[in-house]
Amino acid sequence: MARQMIIGMHLGNGYGALPGAWRMPGVDPTSYTSFDAKVRQAQAAERGKLQFLFLPDGPSALSAEIEYEAPGFNLDVMMTLAAVARGTERIGMVATGSTTFNEPFNLARQFKALDIMSHGRAGWNAITSAGDDVAANYGVRIPSSADRYGRAHEVVQIVQALWGSWSKDAWVHDQASGQFAKSAEIAPINLGGKFVASRGPLYIPPSEQGQPVVFHAGGASANALALAGRYASAVIGAAFTIEDARAQRAAFRDAAERAGRDPDEIKFIPGLMTTIAPDKRAALDRRITLTERAFPQRAAYLQQMLGVRIDPARMGEPLSPDQLAAARPSSGDPRSTYALKIAREGWTLRDILAHGVIDYQPVVAGPPVEVADHMQHWFEAEAADGFWVAPDVYRDGLDDFVDGVVPILQQRGLFHLDYAGMTLRDHLGAPAQYGIDPRIMP
Amino acid sequence: MARQMIIGMHLGNGYGALPGAWRMPGVDPTSYTSFDAKVRQAQAAERGKLQFLFLPDGPSALSAEIEYEAPGFNLDVMMTLAAVARGTERIGMVATGSTTFNEPFNLARQFKALDIMSHGRAGWNAITSAGDDVAANYGVRIPSSADRYGRAHEVVQIVQALWGSWSKDAWVHDQASGQFAKSAEIAPINLGGKFVASRGPLYIPPSEQGQPVVFHAGGASANALALAGRYASAVIGAAFTIEDARAQRAAFRDAAERAGRDPDEIKFIPGLMTTIAPDKRAALDRRITLTERAFPQRAAYLQQMLGVRIDPARMGEPLSPDQLAAARPSSGDPRSTYALKIAREGWTLRDILAHGVIDYQPVVAGPPVEVADHMQHWFEAEAADGFWVAPDVYRDGLDDFVDGVVPILQQRGLFHLDYAGMTLRDHLGAPAQYGIDPRIMP
Repeated sequence: MARQMIIGMHLGNGYGALPGAWRMPGVDPTSYTSFDAKVRQAQAAERGKLQFLFLPDGPSALSAEIEYEAPGFNLDVMMTLAAVARGTERIGMVATGSTTFNEPFNLARQFKALDIMSHGRAGWNAITSAGDDVAANYGVRIPSSADRYGRAHEVVQIVQALWGSWSKDAWVHDQASGQFAKSAEIAPINLGGKFVASRGPLYIPPSEQGQPVVFHAGGASANALALAGRYASAVIGAAFTIEDARAQRAAFRDAAERAGRDPDEIKFIPGLMTTIAPDKRAALDRRITLTERAFPQRAAYLQQMLGVRIDPARMGEPLSPDQLAAARPSSGDPRSTYALKIAREGWTLRDILAHGVIDYQPVVAGPPVEVADHMQHWFEAEAADGFWVAPDVYRDGLDDFVDGVVPILQQRGLFHLDYAGMTLRDHLGAPAQYGIDPRIMP
Repeated sequence: MARQMIIGMHLGNGYGALPGAWRMPGVDPTSYTSFDAKVRQAQAAERGKLQFLFLPDGPSALSAEIEYEAPGFNLDVMMTLAAVARGTERIGMVATGSTTFNEPFNLARQFKALDIMSHGRAGWNAITSAGDDVAANYGVRIPSSADRYGRAHEVVQIVQALWGSWSKDAWVHDQASGQFAKSAEIAPINLGGKFVASRGPLYIPPSEQGQPVVFHAGGASANALALAGRYASAVIGAAFTIEDARAQRAAFRDAAERAGRDPDEIKFIPGLMTTIAPDKRAALDRRITLTERAFPQRAAYLQQMLGVRIDPARMGEPLSPDQLAAARPSSGDPRSTYALKIAREGWTLRDILAHGVIDYQPVVAGPPVEVADHMQHWFEAEAADGFWVAPDVYRDGLDDFVDGVVPILQQRGLFHLDYAGMTLRDHLGAPAQYGIDPRIMP
């Protein structure tokens, strides 16, 4: 069978990935605190046979934008996934859990409980927390990068060891004989390092997939490569251009190989923001509605990206021939080349910004086939093993993806017609693992 | 209206409070990992109009008894309650969360998320963890009692401050005006002490009850009294005798008064283990089936309690007149007087143990009216404001309590006929609170 792509869906604040989502017609403005809303969104993604949900997290300082915009995250990713686990049957669920500000015993226990609860559909996005604003919620300064990644290695190893602290068939629960478990096959782990330690065991037998799948989201720094290369089955990527994505994917595959693994065991999954509408004009208008509050600030930033003066009062006009002639893409921001390309196409300033030239992930704004084309292009160029998709507004943007884009990908043979297995490990083609991976060098 | 009792139900490992529960006829032996089973048990308690579920927790070392007995705890109390919150509508839910091995920001966030998810039905049993075996799961030695309680005070204050970090009407979510929240009414807390600190704010608006209710379970040590007296709306008590319960209740009420509170604001809720059967003989036989594996060890302990030699081979015989004449209740164990009283009634050694003379909580083994009588006696003697009930086996023991005991208490006017309110605060009669309680001295 030809290689097929993996698709995950961003599950965030209940509204959608764009700041204006909460105000859109038909959107329940209380979705931020509605677990029902999250469950319905997860069910829609499952209808589309998507392999997983991705819940980012990271308690940074609350922005003053709260006046106009919803926070980006879930109230609590694990509580959301507990609700979703009970409301879905097949879709995988991946939550971010910081290795910097959680105890490994607590992480191991809660993710394994989710894995049991979902019958083997849990994934842990093991990240390090950066930023003094996050650290301040824990009353500390952020540790150095070396210490954060040093701790991360220890935490992942301890968590995986705890996950494997019951042998696969230790749980007998034989009412006739009266043997509940094989006590000789449940062992402490007694694992510790410079930063953290734990004795174990956990109280939890294996799940249907053994134990949760490890993900990593953390750019392609040397530290992130080493961590993901060693432990991660999938990387939640951030790459704005296809070239960057291809380079990152290759780097993560190399890192896996250096850790003694088959590079096919690590999937590189960059993000994609979608605004789906019957045509380009309607899609741009929709993005304008959803993001225009930020346009004055973004126009100022675009000025830096292109190195020319831009008047934020002239939102309805294209850049002038003089401006375009003088513009030079900033080498400091890889999005600048794309911004200039769009500007040269003659779009108004408002439309240039609506194209998503200053978003964190690539934006496709257009009809479903354009989204499918983008995904196929990146996928076939080996820039991605799949995508995590952030719909602009869940209410209709998610359905438009599931009912519009997914069938095209399926028709082209790029996406599975249905789930073949039951667990997240099945969906990803991630090899069986239980406890610390014995194939990986110590 | 006359004072009525509060009843909570112990929700543990999915089987019941007694070690043999998992082997009983009709019990699903996989209930330990079944969230469906927990939800059904919660629904049964809700059918009985019980005010709350109580989920103890504390990851101590796994006992070698795992060979024959299920662990006592839930896989993860918060994941269990997330499932229960989605499967029930009125019953309160109280989980133990250690102040010793959790960060206040993480505790605050997850309990508040549960409070939102359950529409104001969450309670936090704020305890300190004791025992080097628990500490070993976190790679440390257990701190001194002074340090543990010192940290507990800081953690509770920070958690409560974080809970109140949005003003009550800060969340506007007005789609027409575009105001999501009043940013001026969401403030950092910047609270810290010797052990922990946090900047805040949380990302979470108030729940239907404002914020979760604080419980405390921790004996009646001076430290526990000071902590509970200051913060707790209810105490999960452990008292084997009515005299002890009356003394503890008075001590907690005094402690609340010393902290500047109305003593009626702290409810003392001791435990009660039930084995319900048509008559005493059937109830004792049921307890024998459920606990007899421990009888040899318990007979040895009974020997110490009574100060006479006891032959564990003679389980079917009463103590001899010589043994009874020589027996003296040990002053080291308050249960000894009761044990001697039962022994003097002429029960066999097996039946003496089956009476629960060495259990941690008072045991009532008999028909429903006996359970109701016990509860009424303690309640009217001001030894309790209510009870947390641990049925021996959830499968039938819980239904027997709900369908057998509850109607008797209702008939006697001792228990409400239905929930009057929607929130846990309503069910307990706990005063409204948001943020740190301003009535309590700093």
